Amino acid sequence: MHSVMNKRGLIKFSLSVWCLCISLMTYAQYGKYVDPKIGSEGLGRVFVGPSAPFGMVKPGPDCTCKPNSGWLPMPEVVTGFAQVHVSGTGGGPKYGNILVQPYCGEPDMESHEAKREYEKIELGYYNTRFQENGIQTELTTSDRCSFYQFTYPKESKRSLRVDAGFFLGENPVPDAREAQQFVGSEIEIVSDTEVRGYSRIRGGWNNGRAYTVYFYAVADKPFTKTLTWKDKFSSSTEKAQCDEGKKTGAVISWGEESTESTVKLKIGISFLSSLKAQENVRKEIPHWDFQQLLAKVRLQWEKLLERIELGKGATEVQKRMFYTALYHTLIMPVDRTGENPLWTDNAPYYDDFYAIWDTYRTSSPLITILSPQRETDIVNALINIYKRDGYMPDARSGNANGRTQGGSNAEVVIADALVKGLKGIDYELALKAMLKDATVPPGGNEEQEGRGGLLEYNRLGYVPFGIDRAGNRTVEYAYNDYNIATVAKMLGKNDIYKEYIRKADNWKNLWRDNYEYDGVKGFIMPRSASGEWLDDLPFGHSKVQHPTFRYTPVTNESPWYAPWWGTFFYEGISWEYSLSIPHDVPALIEKSGGNEAFRNRLDTFFDKGYYNVNNEPSFLTPCLYHWIGRPDLSSARIKQIITRNYNDTPGGLPGNDDSGAMSSWLAFHMMGLYPNAGQPYYLIHSPLVSEYTIRLTNGNSLHVVAKKLSEKNCNIQHVSLNGKELHRAWINHDELSQGGELIIEMGNKPSDWGTEELPPVKM
Amino acid sequence: MHSVMNKRGLIKFSLSVWCLCISLMTYAQYGKYVDPKIGSEGLGRVFVGPSAPFGMVKPGPDCTCKPNSGWLPMPEVVTGFAQVHVSGTGGGPKYGNILVQPYCGEPDMESHEAKREYEKIELGYYNTRFQENGIQTELTTSDRCSFYQFTYPKESKRSLRVDAGFFLGENPVPDAREAQQFVGSEIEIVSDTEVRGYSRIRGGWNNGRAYTVYFYAVADKPFTKTLTWKDKFSSSTEKAQCDEGKKTGAVISWGEESTESTVKLKIGISFLSSLKAQENVRKEIPHWDFQQLLAKVRLQWEKLLERIELGKGATEVQKRMFYTALYHTLIMPVDRTGENPLWTDNAPYYDDFYAIWDTYRTSSPLITILSPQRETDIVNALINIYKRDGYMPDARSGNANGRTQGGSNAEVVIADALVKGLKGIDYELALKAMLKDATVPPGGNEEQEGRGGLLEYNRLGYVPFGIDRAGNRTVEYAYNDYNIATVAKMLGKNDIYKEYIRKADNWKNLWRDNYEYDGVKGFIMPRSASGEWLDDLPFGHSKVQHPTFRYTPVTNESPWYAPWWGTFFYEGISWEYSLSIPHDVPALIEKSGGNEAFRNRLDTFFDKGYYNVNNEPSFLTPCLYHWIGRPDLSSARIKQIITRNYNDTPGGLPGNDDSGAMSSWLAFHMMGLYPNAGQPYYLIHSPLVSEYTIRLTNGNSLHVVAKKLSEKNCNIQHVSLNGKELHRAWINHDELSQGGELIIEMGNKPSDWGTEELPPVKM
Repeated sequence: MHSVMNKRGLIKFSLSVWCLCISLMTYAQYGKYVDPKIGSEGLGRVFVGPSAPFGMVKPGPDCTCKPNSGWLPMPEVVTGFAQVHVSGTGGGPKYGNILVQPYCGEPDMESHEAKREYEKIELGYYNTRFQENGIQTELTTSDRCSFYQFTYPKESKRSLRVDAGFFLGENPVPDAREAQQFVGSEIEIVSDTEVRGYSRIRGGWNNGRAYTVYFYAVADKPFTKTLTWKDKFSSSTEKAQCDEGKKTGAVISWGEESTESTVKLKIGISFLSSLKAQENVRKEIPHWDFQQLLAKVRLQWEKLLERIELGKGATEVQKRMFYTALYHTLIMPVDRTGENPLWTDNAPYYDDFYAIWDTYRTSSPLITILSPQRETDIVNALINIYKRDGYMPDARSGNANGRTQGGSNAEVVIADALVKGLKGIDYELALKAMLKDATVPPGGNEEQEGRGGLLEYNRLGYVPFGIDRAGNRTVEYAYNDYNIATVAKMLGKNDIYKEYIRKADNWKNLWRDNYEYDGVKGFIMPRSASGEWLDDLPFGHSKVQHPTFRYTPVTNESPWYAPWWGTFFYEGISWEYSLSIPHDVPALIEKSGGNEAFRNRLDTFFDKGYYNVNNEPSFLTPCLYHWIGRPDLSSARIKQIITRNYNDTPGGLPGNDDSGAMSSWLAFHMMGLYPNAGQPYYLIHSPLVSEYTIRLTNGNSLHVVAKKLSEKNCNIQHVSLNGKELHRAWINHDELSQGGELIIEMGNKPSDWGTEELPPVKM
Repeated sequence: MHSVMNKRGLIKFSLSVWCLCISLMTYAQYGKYVDPKIGSEGLGRVFVGPSAPFGMVKPGPDCTCKPNSGWLPMPEVVTGFAQVHVSGTGGGPKYGNILVQPYCGEPDMESHEAKREYEKIELGYYNTRFQENGIQTELTTSDRCSFYQFTYPKESKRSLRVDAGFFLGENPVPDAREAQQFVGSEIEIVSDTEVRGYSRIRGGWNNGRAYTVYFYAVADKPFTKTLTWKDKFSSSTEKAQCDEGKKTGAVISWGEESTESTVKLKIGISFLSSLKAQENVRKEIPHWDFQQLLAKVRLQWEKLLERIELGKGATEVQKRMFYTALYHTLIMPVDRTGENPLWTDNAPYYDDFYAIWDTYRTSSPLITILSPQRETDIVNALINIYKRDGYMPDARSGNANGRTQGGSNAEVVIADALVKGLKGIDYELALKAMLKDATVPPGGNEEQEGRGGLLEYNRLGYVPFGIDRAGNRTVEYAYNDYNIATVAKMLGKNDIYKEYIRKADNWKNLWRDNYEYDGVKGFIMPRSASGEWLDDLPFGHSKVQHPTFRYTPVTNESPWYAPWWGTFFYEGISWEYSLSIPHDVPALIEKSGGNEAFRNRLDTFFDKGYYNVNNEPSFLTPCLYHWIGRPDLSSARIKQIITRNYNDTPGGLPGNDDSGAMSSWLAFHMMGLYPNAGQPYYLIHSPLVSEYTIRLTNGNSLHVVAKKLSEKNCNIQHVSLNGKELHRAWINHDELSQGGELIIEMGNKPSDWGTEELPPVKM
């Protein structure tokens, strides 16, 4: 028996070493270019801690309860390490639950914040040492569990605070908008190595219903002392503090050691129960080998990152930007299959669509290329949410739909899946879900789901001024109606197609033809329910003087009582949204007065600074030159935008990454391909890297070479696909997925490539 | 120390004996008349197990998973005893969670159903013995915990199955309408005396979101064996089965005894967590004395039942009917303050409004008399649900609003509270909640909350045919609008008052003046959105033949695809709803062609059997004779209805008790007083008991004597209040709450009392 044990031990050890080798070897190939800090400072707000792909658990440092991702740069103090976060979000925060805080000292109720001495942030790995107490914290993760390794200085009183009451964005005002609100919490010391409990929180950015984050923590060394607390009272004898609507927590201690010593702690998370959290630990980390887990999560990443191989021509900086962009695209939404407290069935369950408004344009299309099965699962989750919960989300977090910022953009995601041939989706049911958005008003809380102002939109053909966000809602609903038309047509439902292809023109009902600004004619402008164009909008609450203010295509301000949610356009100006008709650029060009006028419109837009690099509404706009036969101008704009705004530093993302939206935009543009979500093609423009290979999951590969690419040679001269000349500046998804070779010959001057055959028109 | 212990023991023992004495003494006075079996058979569907007033926990026998209250009469087999039930409900069931089943035998996964040998059902107490195994189960309860006493035969293998997967109304079809659906469950044997876990279920009658019933069970004897299971797999070694979306449970055993032996089991319930359930046990039952707990729950009841004392003239049967009616009125809604998993604040929290559509008429007014503080708490809970959840419920169960059957009848409850002077309610906020119902459409799921068809109702002044339940929705909305007018007026908001007092007339828009049926003119009838009266309604789905069927005031059937929820009137016919204008009977009389025609209308209604004794819409109708100056005819009808339909047997309620709606209707009528909810008066008619005293919580008492009352002397001759002759057939709530003496002189012939001064008109 003993010798068997030894044999087993040896095998285990060998396996572990082998895993580590594999990890270092494979990690060396792609994962080493992932720098989770890119986009962590400034507006990017990305999450810097370790995360598995679409990982439910995202443990990382929390610096005060204010920032969205938890993290702030040094020298901010670290409050502790919470287990659940989101990445790149704006507005009010969400999550930040189950905070652990290592410190040296006796168990007490105090918070022992500390400053960082250094910080090491890598793919799947976080490491810091606190200045005040010298504790080193290392951190890695599986899908649903965190793994901590705390190294305490010698002769220190090794303690860990486990705070079940902590969360991000606390606000003393009940039901304060976008603020998370405490509902309840619980803590229970189960044995001398185990603690469990939960944190129940409501509200947050999406003003959602209460969600509960359960945890189970197990240490590799027995506690020597414990303390639990509830509200203002603590006890060194009570092992449990039940939920009475108060904050609870525990301190666990391991006493002193004469030498520097390490305590390991695994924390399982679940949205069902603490026992399920324990089961997650049992299944995902049935060992105490930190390196083995780190190797595993890196291997998970490697399997995804290797789907696109940048060739030798790419610089280190480009590789860092590109692979980090892929990484950021793949950390949300999160896979919570089997962790849904609302219903049980066999469908996949995803949460933290945050928000589809941000991610439909480039994140979904990129996931479809990297992992079509994953995108299929995500789409099925969306449809199942409709089936069980009533509506597909435009955003969803903490198991609650909300908030919609404009359209019901799950429509785009579904249309994109269908036109790109994703199998295993019930598109008939999906169409029902889409039609529900388009026909059934969502009721009192119009930010939760569906389409606000729907009755007016369906009656008038536009959302009239007076209803929040009338401008972008109209523009987005028209696009969403186009998506419905697309799906209906492909399913052979001609009546529905006819109805919705007509509605896809509804943006024209807010197009004020003769309105001129900066020498450009025609803008999406506010219009009353009775059909009047409004030059002046009401200001303030006075019903006596009825004050107004002038509204123009550059108006970016709103009265003090109306944040973005109450303005005509959400997070944007008319200049931006008047270029945001992704399904009918030819009609937009015509409305703008033809090719010349449209080029002038685009040039004015970029040159006068109306283009907003830090938000999604203008994601497609730099490519609009393609539709007037000038892909060279698209390429020039894109290069300029990326050069000026993106880099591989912590400030390297110009806006909220929004679950990877900014990142996926960048990744596509670096490849010289850009999707128009909901439509089956990619526009071709000048790549920023000279060679790359897309390894598709169907076994095919697309090898792309940009010959002679250099700083000067940034204009496309000729393109060939599998040896056949390609005059058009786009390829179909079918062509991409059949793979082969795409040769792009570059030169230093614009050519006539792509000037004749324009991108596809609407179906 | 030892002597102190003895002293303590003695004190404890004395206290226990004293409690028991108090219990028996006080129980003897009022509680002994409560027979929870009245209304348990036939349509009544009352819950027969023990319950504290408004008690969160309602443990009782479950016979299969079909019946709404769990219970079925012998000889049905008993599956076990679940801890949470509702009382008197129709439609699909709700709850039936955490089933325990005592049996004799080794731990196994089988269900050991058994037949009852006898059944003893008393206030706060249930007792049965199983034929198959001879186990006696006794049962009592506190607010949030059950207390079981199982007496096993000698030399039997004492086992108990704890089933966390059981619930009422299981249906294999996902999301089947009104069916409860399994979401998840968990079981954990914590020590050799403790088990805990939960059951998470969604759906049920109100098609609500998932709710979770947590439990903590503790036995007074250590387990000798245990077994746990998940899905189809069981284990005698695994102590816990975590939630993986499968049914779980445990069997606990206490081995054999040579003599008959008793095992006691306390089960705490919580909607927050198992630890909170444990805390509920600790707080509510810190002992093992079954009799003491029984005494306590009976004392709780005595404090409420003693508020109305029936005089010596009342028969045993009348006392049994009356006190059981009070009892049934006071078991729902349930007090879940401190047990709300959705938000935490200082407001009271009540659940299981099931439904206000049923209870607003007589249950709320009766609670206001018996315990105004309780009604205040309930109203505050309603308003707080609006504040945190968006809308007040018309029905709510399992922490989820739904389903509305007609109006937004929380409006009536609030108006009733205000006109009866309940303090400690933020009526300004309440008005906001009411106005939300009246102005903001509830969205896609119009059965959840608010007013379905609101836009059409507000545009046309009625709900047009084509929208579900257009008839009763219109009638009820008009009354709800009257309630809003009432509250607005009392708060000095004249603009709102004016708007809503006008809308209170909206029922007239569905009044088809010249429509004649059975010699009676004018009925609420279906009308199209364009204003046409509809004699024929569509039948079936054929869009080719467009078949129709004739709709008349007695039409009680609907096409096969349209249950009550899709018909013109909910659970009723036009004959009934055309008499259901509680805020404007004078206008109804005028619309009906004057007093004579109205009397004919009422007589026809009763004599031809259009009156439906088993449902709430006609609750007020027998009293409508008051408004034509004929309270004697009201009295005659009421006496006839009660004599024919109500008694003190298990079949003694003619319809679903609906949380005590039928019961409270009976209680008021036995007293010869009847409220018109939302209005500050009680109609006076012939009491069925000759003397009673209402002991108000303000310290006043109203002593009511019906002099010379007999089978023949059932007509009121004169009435005096505090010595002053009362010509009118009603008293104000103020008069009632000031107390004093109400002398009603009875005679054998109708008099001219109450013929002159008619009940108050609308404000």
